[in-house]
Amino acid sequence: MILTFTDFGVSGPYVGQMAAVIARDAPGVPVIDLMADAPAFDPQASAYLLAALWPQVPAGAVCLAVVDPGVGTARRAIYVETRDSQGAAAPRWLVGPDNGLLAVVAATAAEAAEVHEILWRPPALSASFHGRDLFAPVAARLATGRPVEARPLACTDLVGADWPASRAAVIYIDGYGNAMTGLRAAGLGQGDRLAVGDFELAFAPTFAEVPAASAFWYANSLGLVEIAVNRGSAAAQLGLGIGTPVRVTGG
Amino acid sequence: MILTFTDFGVSGPYVGQMAAVIARDAPGVPVIDLMADAPAFDPQASAYLLAALWPQVPAGAVCLAVVDPGVGTARRAIYVETRDSQGAAAPRWLVGPDNGLLAVVAATAAEAAEVHEILWRPPALSASFHGRDLFAPVAARLATGRPVEARPLACTDLVGADWPASRAAVIYIDGYGNAMTGLRAAGLGQGDRLAVGDFELAFAPTFAEVPAASAFWYANSLGLVEIAVNRGSAAAQLGLGIGTPVRVTGG
Amino acid sequence: MILTFTDFGVSGPYVGQMAAVIARDAPGVPVIDLMADAPAFDPQASAYLLAALWPQVPAGAVCLAVVDPGVGTARRAIYVETRDSQGAAAPRWLVGPDNGLLAVVAATAAEAAEVHEILWRPPALSASFHGRDLFAPVAARLATGRPVEARPLACTDLVGADWPASRAAVIYIDGYGNAMTGLRAAGLGQGDRLAVGDFELAFAPTFAEVPAASAFWYANSLGLVEIAVNRGSAAAQLGLGIGTPVRVTGG
Repeated sequence: MILTFTDFGVSGPYVGQMAAVIARDAPGVPVIDLMADAPAFDPQASAYLLAALWPQVPAGAVCLAVVDPGVGTARRAIYVETRDSQGAAAPRWLVGPDNGLLAVVAATAAEAAEVHEILWRPPALSASFHGRDLFAPVAARLATGRPVEARPLACTDLVGADWPASRAAVIYIDGYGNAMTGLRAAGLGQGDRLAVGDFELAFAPTFAEVPAASAFWYANSLGLVEIAVNRGSAAAQLGLGIGTPVRVTGG
Repeated sequence: MILTFTDFGVSGPYVGQMAAVIARDAPGVPVIDLMADAPAFDPQASAYLLAALWPQVPAGAVCLAVVDPGVGTARRAIYVETRDSQGAAAPRWLVGPDNGLLAVVAATAAEAAEVHEILWRPPALSASFHGRDLFAPVAARLATGRPVEARPLACTDLVGADWPASRAAVIYIDGYGNAMTGLRAAGLGQGDRLAVGDFELAFAPTFAEVPAASAFWYANSLGLVEIAVNRGSAAAQLGLGIGTPVRVTGG
Repeated sequence: MILTFTDFGVSGPYVGQMAAVIARDAPGVPVIDLMADAPAFDPQASAYLLAALWPQVPAGAVCLAVVDPGVGTARRAIYVETRDSQGAAAPRWLVGPDNGLLAVVAATAAEAAEVHEILWRPPALSASFHGRDLFAPVAARLATGRPVEARPLACTDLVGADWPASRAAVIYIDGYGNAMTGLRAAGLGQGDRLAVGDFELAFAPTFAEVPAASAFWYANSLGLVEIAVNRGSAAAQLGLGIGTPVRVTGG
């Protein structure tokens, strides 16, 4: 299967054009819109979100990731291949721009990661939509076992290779106003509090255990620290945006 | 095929993660996003909407329905199997929480309905995303004929078993501002008027037969009484929200 | 494959119901949501957008196009079959209402176009959702090679047959606020300026080459003249809407 991860937005003919290319070039391979509202123009926040989603991507799948404000400039196109340490499961791939978007997965994936610069080019390449013209055909080739002209890169050579494994800031706000951070919940205890702006939030295990309109933090379904308000918008109520810093304070 | 019916919203990585689980667990089974903006946190309004959509679900299909504000609490997980009275067509299934969401279909479907509590559990179950971790794998198992550990329940034992077959209130507002009610249009005559707030609306067969900016009611494509304004928003113009009561008045 | 092009919006159960019909009637044929936010109630603007997207539709595909404010009235249902001049590739089809929506493709496609009025009718036809009840089943029949009862029409007989091949106006505004026009970029030089309202915009090849918050025009990935603001909303900043006229001024 091929999963698309983009900042194209849920409207417009952009995700659909990529899916049409995949259906043409990789017949029979399902295409799933994983999400189309990754942090816009923000490869760094998107990279942490993509890394949190990565464990949800099944063996054998290709993730076509496009958050690409530098499209049309000289930034490289890359793909990353990961294999589990036992080599038991099928590999998985990410395809996208070398702007940091794939760097957190490449650096933190439990599996061994190999990075390649994509040298293959399509017959026609628009200046503004490499997702359709370059990355989607490459994803289709990887998903169907066809060759992609490429050259190896060192992981340390990627843009974003020096980014830390977690990020103490808001990286995504969902449609309800819940705010995901780039912190792994496994690193916090239930007694830890989360400082954000003028607020300090306590842990709660689920929405159902806090009163309506109360803010709290919890371990979300991706294993990230997430700030929420039961039946309300944490983003609106606490004034959060992508990039708002957070800080763990003692229990 | 598996149809998803959720209140997850059209943005975010939620519907996509469920689709990826299904593509992994039920290869070759198409996954269709039936709708992702069912009334949020509102299993009751959603239940009437789902029941109106149920006749559109093809034989053999599974509907994965998740409107689940009580996720993480002790509410049961269930599936419903329906068969037409002649037993000619393939069965259909609904999978979801026992919070009323499936109750209106279970009680009003023309077919015989059998209800089961799902006892099967996945190796890992998050506190907040049973759609991905529990309901999607169960839907994949039902769609591919694999067993699901379960025990029979009486239909009368479901949450919402006592809800009436129709609901005299707004149950959904679409992107244009049209307001669906939980009333079956077959129960009304063309001379009937619909009272809502301070307004009383007459019937019109189609949008094309009323002037622009005029409010009316009509029998929508699901067979429900729907309140609309030609080329305008009925919700904004009449001040409607999910739950706004309506009343049929004489012709 | 079948591509849906509609003004149904990204929310609601409308695109999903069409996809369910296709999955039922054309098993194994992928359904792709090309876009669901075509200009609402506006077959003319939508027709130019559809014509710009048409080269992206693969050989053998069916485009199910529904922008249909006249649904329920006596407007005809049509399908268009196009073949490349060499007859080498598989044909492609469009299915939709005869309200101009398909007319620009039919008149300007590089391939030979044959137009038919659809006479086939489903067992049950709602007044307001011909996309689900009529056009989706016809698309499924065309995609699977089954017959569709129809009669030939002259291209010149279509509503919109007299519309020009390009349109000097905004035809679509995407989620970022970029404004597509109905002008082919191939007809303009890089020294040409674009007048819109009180503004006159210069050409830039890519977003990356203009300062943030600056407005410019460029050749978008569909080959259309598009008005954009780097990391901003051209629609908001310049006061653009669908139908806003534009004018090419000397270099």
